[in-house]
Amino acid sequence: MQRAGTNAMKAIIDGVIAEKLDIEKQISSLKSTFRIADLGCSVGPNTFIAMQNIIDAVQQKYQSQGFASHMPEFQVFFNNHTSNDFNTLFASLPPERPYFATGVPGSFHGRLFPDFSLDFVHSSFALQWLSKVPEELLNKNSAAWNKGRVHYASAPDEVAQAYTAQFAKDITTFLDGRAKELVVGGLMVLIMPGIPNGIPHSSSATGLTFDFLGHCLMDMAKEGLISEVQVDSFNLPVYVASPKEMTQLVERNGCFSIERMKITQPWVRVDDLSGQACTMHLRAGMEGIISKHFGTEIIDELFDRYCKKHGEFIGLLESKCNGNQLFIVLKRNMMRLWKHT
Amino acid sequence: MQRAGTNAMKAIIDGVIAEKLDIEKQISSLKSTFRIADLGCSVGPNTFIAMQNIIDAVQQKYQSQGFASHMPEFQVFFNNHTSNDFNTLFASLPPERPYFATGVPGSFHGRLFPDFSLDFVHSSFALQWLSKVPEELLNKNSAAWNKGRVHYASAPDEVAQAYTAQFAKDITTFLDGRAKELVVGGLMVLIMPGIPNGIPHSSSATGLTFDFLGHCLMDMAKEGLISEVQVDSFNLPVYVASPKEMTQLVERNGCFSIERMKITQPWVRVDDLSGQACTMHLRAGMEGIISKHFGTEIIDELFDRYCKKHGEFIGLLESKCNGNQLFIVLKRNMMRLWKHT
Repeated sequence: MQRAGTNAMKAIIDGVIAEKLDIEKQISSLKSTFRIADLGCSVGPNTFIAMQNIIDAVQQKYQSQGFASHMPEFQVFFNNHTSNDFNTLFASLPPERPYFATGVPGSFHGRLFPDFSLDFVHSSFALQWLSKVPEELLNKNSAAWNKGRVHYASAPDEVAQAYTAQFAKDITTFLDGRAKELVVGGLMVLIMPGIPNGIPHSSSATGLTFDFLGHCLMDMAKEGLISEVQVDSFNLPVYVASPKEMTQLVERNGCFSIERMKITQPWVRVDDLSGQACTMHLRAGMEGIISKHFGTEIIDELFDRYCKKHGEFIGLLESKCNGNQLFIVLKRNMMRLWKHT
Repeated sequence: MQRAGTNAMKAIIDGVIAEKLDIEKQISSLKSTFRIADLGCSVGPNTFIAMQNIIDAVQQKYQSQGFASHMPEFQVFFNNHTSNDFNTLFASLPPERPYFATGVPGSFHGRLFPDFSLDFVHSSFALQWLSKVPEELLNKNSAAWNKGRVHYASAPDEVAQAYTAQFAKDITTFLDGRAKELVVGGLMVLIMPGIPNGIPHSSSATGLTFDFLGHCLMDMAKEGLISEVQVDSFNLPVYVASPKEMTQLVERNGCFSIERMKITQPWVRVDDLSGQACTMHLRAGMEGIISKHFGTEIIDELFDRYCKKHGEFIGLLESKCNGNQLFIVLKRNMMRLWKHT
């Protein structure tokens, strides 16, 4: 599914670079390195394909504008958490790559690069991860205590509000960092799960998916395979934002112009996929965080149950909205510099 | 031993930066990132100490020259082979570091960075590793066939010549790459084992050490623990250069001025150390390459034998020269640009 997304993105990113990238500025400043960061990159091939696409599009732009003789060299910074498997990432780098590769360990909720040192930022299906679970969810005395659930989709408003507030904090620090790191005129492409404006959380495919996963965990708790306390203290740190929310957060930051903010249909419709394919996709994304909390021994059982529930899930999905992707292009504007802290 | 070297280097590097680094140029070009690469870095703390020392010295220079308000940000590139354990390196990064950290996988015998993208290159005890064993050593019909030995120290001239030629090739590609990657005026500090001019290879401590290791392997072959063919086909890809050789290679490249070329006494005298400490040091450096060829199961036995021979070894060392370090400071000069290939 991610690969389908990466391929579909190619055409869009090609267009963004062709229209929005200022290469005259690059050339006049005699700058010869074009630096690209993939924030929260995957370990697999998707990150390499995405980086290649961006470089192809930039080279195409230089050529079509008659600046082929000023072609920059490319340096790509692959970023993920320090606990990411950089050894595997490095071992799988394409041998014939048109860029110098580097790895950058650390959270994109903090600073990762020097001021004005990046020309292009890409982040695909990473920004939906919160930096942490909102604390109120674990507090029995709070109205946001999320007993018996692992997400906010079908939870009381207070739970969703706690998630929304944490997401706003995280995106704020993310944008603050990137505003410092991107050169003026630099582009940022963000791809993440999204929900159309005005649609309730309980109607998003991601929300439904996590609800179903929560039901499976609660069933296992009722059968004594895990404890209910374990489920109560577990919440998926994932948020699905709407274009309106993202627009507000970008405007509040003030350092970027919004070049594109689009919610699209999924590249692969969930109901075209078998229950097994859906389960594998979910398991690939969630196994780490679930086994860290519950132990690895429950994983097979949990996803077997999830897979069996898939028919029921699809029925619900068809009557509600489908999963959507949010596609955002921001440009570091010239109007406002960040305050030096 | 490496740590002792790192500490002793601090004073020297402080002096080099204070005297040789042109910061006026940095400031006039409004450049705000100072990029440092540690080529062939260790996984342990030595690389972090060395990088901190360099940054301290650069900051000190900015302050003492009245440019404190123009202090650059620092970005450090930790380089080693792709098979290096970057996960461990990243996990052990000092949490409160005054620099942005990145990892760069690949051989420093090839290109690693874009043109003119580094301000300072550091490499400590890495350049003695050859990119490969010279092929003649494995050819029974060659005068350089290195039967019954694992190194050139006490071998016929043809063997040493094959090593010398491979080293010259490797340093040539190393200097070619760095000449492109360093900014004009950029500094390069290289630290490696060295042998004084005019001293025979058989008198270097490193050469003697490898001779002894070869004797231990041959003893094991005679006892049938390994085969002689295995020893014949094994050669340590390590070369110990003299200041004269390095001077010639740098001059042939032509892109660097030699700011310092010094052969020093070791920071730790080998005969001050116990046999066990010496053996541990050797084992730390060589275990990987030996077990790759002979299998891990011979390692304990081999180094036990080496440790027992240590008394004999020290006796020989005292009557010959001791281990030396070669310390080189190069500056990317303004006179000559590399030819564009």
